Amino acid sequence: MNAVDIINKKRLGGVLSEQEIEYMVMGFTEGAIPDYQMSALLMAICLKGMTKEETVQLTRIMRDSGETVDLSEIRGIKVDKHSTGGVGDKTTLIVAPIAAACGVPIAKMSGRGLGFTGGTVDKMESIPGFVTSMERSRFIESVNDKGIAVIGQTGHIAPADKKMYALRDVTGTTESISLITSSIMSKKLAAGADAIVLDVKCGAGAFMKTYEDARELASWMVDIGRGNGKSMTAVISDMNQPLGRAVGNALEVQEAIDVLKGGGPEDIRTLSLKLAAEMIRLGGRADGDSAKAGQLALEALDGGAALEKFRQFVANQGGDSEITSDRTRLPQAAFAVSVTADEAGFVTRLDAMEIGLASQHAGAGREKKEDAIDMAAGILLEKKLGDEAAAGEVLCTVYGSDEAKVKNGARQAKAAFAIGKDKPEVPELIKEVIR
Amino acid sequence: MNAVDIINKKRLGGVLSEQEIEYMVMGFTEGAIPDYQMSALLMAICLKGMTKEETVQLTRIMRDSGETVDLSEIRGIKVDKHSTGGVGDKTTLIVAPIAAACGVPIAKMSGRGLGFTGGTVDKMESIPGFVTSMERSRFIESVNDKGIAVIGQTGHIAPADKKMYALRDVTGTTESISLITSSIMSKKLAAGADAIVLDVKCGAGAFMKTYEDARELASWMVDIGRGNGKSMTAVISDMNQPLGRAVGNALEVQEAIDVLKGGGPEDIRTLSLKLAAEMIRLGGRADGDSAKAGQLALEALDGGAALEKFRQFVANQGGDSEITSDRTRLPQAAFAVSVTADEAGFVTRLDAMEIGLASQHAGAGREKKEDAIDMAAGILLEKKLGDEAAAGEVLCTVYGSDEAKVKNGARQAKAAFAIGKDKPEVPELIKEVIR
Repeated sequence: MNAVDIINKKRLGGVLSEQEIEYMVMGFTEGAIPDYQMSALLMAICLKGMTKEETVQLTRIMRDSGETVDLSEIRGIKVDKHSTGGVGDKTTLIVAPIAAACGVPIAKMSGRGLGFTGGTVDKMESIPGFVTSMERSRFIESVNDKGIAVIGQTGHIAPADKKMYALRDVTGTTESISLITSSIMSKKLAAGADAIVLDVKCGAGAFMKTYEDARELASWMVDIGRGNGKSMTAVISDMNQPLGRAVGNALEVQEAIDVLKGGGPEDIRTLSLKLAAEMIRLGGRADGDSAKAGQLALEALDGGAALEKFRQFVANQGGDSEITSDRTRLPQAAFAVSVTADEAGFVTRLDAMEIGLASQHAGAGREKKEDAIDMAAGILLEKKLGDEAAAGEVLCTVYGSDEAKVKNGARQAKAAFAIGKDKPEVPELIKEVIR
Repeated sequence: MNAVDIINKKRLGGVLSEQEIEYMVMGFTEGAIPDYQMSALLMAICLKGMTKEETVQLTRIMRDSGETVDLSEIRGIKVDKHSTGGVGDKTTLIVAPIAAACGVPIAKMSGRGLGFTGGTVDKMESIPGFVTSMERSRFIESVNDKGIAVIGQTGHIAPADKKMYALRDVTGTTESISLITSSIMSKKLAAGADAIVLDVKCGAGAFMKTYEDARELASWMVDIGRGNGKSMTAVISDMNQPLGRAVGNALEVQEAIDVLKGGGPEDIRTLSLKLAAEMIRLGGRADGDSAKAGQLALEALDGGAALEKFRQFVANQGGDSEITSDRTRLPQAAFAVSVTADEAGFVTRLDAMEIGLASQHAGAGREKKEDAIDMAAGILLEKKLGDEAAAGEVLCTVYGSDEAKVKNGARQAKAAFAIGKDKPEVPELIKEVIR
């Protein structure tokens, strides 16, 4: 086999064999194929595409390039959940306890945040004492005993993806549905679950800006997951404005607790129930009946079982479970700056990405991997899209431990809002469920 | 400016500005742009194309990446000639003296052969004493005094092309009309002539296998040359079978002398006269009249002026000009093996590339740049396409100094021939002149 022949085949629009894909991907990962040949192939893939079958194979090869997690010692159908990333997205903290309370074993590996979107691992680490790394044996034991454990991703998952992503980033080869799908799915497949519920975001604060693009990505991810033997569901949800009212680590944990206690903003409650229901259904706990799964999720949430499961989960990983009754046990910000409306009117724009960046700059996020996070920093939104505000009324409040950063964040947060005379159309939250 | 933005622009089918092309090409040549970014751009160019305007700019930038030859001290319109490469193509040795005899100053830099096509510099070096390198001042002086000098290319011409070509070769990005055209033309433009006559070959022994592809390349080269201020003509000629009957360095010099003396094979005489006429016309020696230029070329050839100019040219560069009257002064082969027809019939196939390879393996050519050449080695064709042969009659004779190599070449040469019952159609030699 020869790299130039394989590149030429794709340049001419041919379909690569599994052996050819493996030759290039593993050769590149191990250093035998130089980066200039890989970047030529990646560009040819961007412009000539890959079939779904090629993408299934590519994803499997990338998955097998590193460690894969063996969850076979855990009883039951293990269901994972993945969000393509958004602002204020604390659904894992709500959905996982609901599904676990319904008997779905949750053995989840989550990521850290980078840029304007947060990561579940960072959010959990804002809980005093909470530990996101544990030995494999204790991870398995925790899931079998408590029904739930969430840890940080290890560095040995899908090294081929890591190396290819770094190259794509600097060679203008990011925009390929096959390459995007295989990058996400290779890591999810390596995490070892039997079924995966995808939360695919679309809008200003998401990677996919339009519904059409999000729908295409969702459908590819579902097909590539199924092609590799997983049960799949995708929920496409709006990410034009942030999800819920809290953005920032401890603030989002607090909002998740509010939802688990039966309160919280309506949007985050609705989406969490939908995602949990899909996990319960795929987990074999509702006889494949979506309505029944939805009912089970609702009962676990409103009956308090999910909150109790959350407390067990936090305590099992060393965290302070009393945060559910005493919010002051979570990190508290030293500074707060409120953003007010200059004139009366309706919120006609609340840009999720700008709020995400404002929160990041207030201290809640990282620009580089090494950056430390201010766990108390973030934004509480008082007004959301379509809400009416009087002149001088508070639109949001920005929190943090560094006064200058908080002020800077507040300036940015203000720019995320637009106030107009006419009440705007608010985008539907849940756009589609691909089962 | 940013490499990724430029790559993305081309990936999306955009037209690059001169500044963007220069940023990438010069950055790559100087080492600031890594090869993986250049290969991604080259693949995007292969698949999305470049306009002729972009290609004019690319060619100029590549030309200016190294030394350019200043021929302004030479009086008159300097006309260069370029062949895209073929087998048995000794036209330069005939055309240059004819044009020089008609008053067109010939200040030519030629290449060496690699693979199955020969190079003019190698052929000239088979003349005892002939030197193909000289100081710039003596080169200029030679052309002003004698009207003609032909030297080898220096290593400092268009380094951008050298580096890009090496990368294209290993990244499946050779097949782009813009990249092919700019690679050839950047070097021709750097050679400093005012006008260029292109001999574009098509067929089994040429880079371009079909007339359509050759025509496209010819038209791009003409346009890119004109876009950079040169007068251009392209002649498209057949290269299915070798040109003339001699293949190999000293054998081709001998055949060129035969033509200069009024003899030689008809095809090489016809094509040489056509190319010389175009050079005379572009050189301003025929009032732009092609018929008049053709007449001048014919007179110079049949009147002996071209032969005399050839003798002056050889002597001026240290060569033995007595070779024109005594062919034994050229290198003579120690071994000869004749290839005969197994059965009676017509030559229905005479594959130029296979003859070129057979000649190379007999010792006439190089596989690697460092390889030495056997100047006496080569092939004399007794039968060409459409000729009739009796069973046992000689089709060709293979010459060389190494018996094993000669035998090997003879085996290969035999495979280049096919004998059939029906007289085949012989392709037209000169297919088109693009003026």
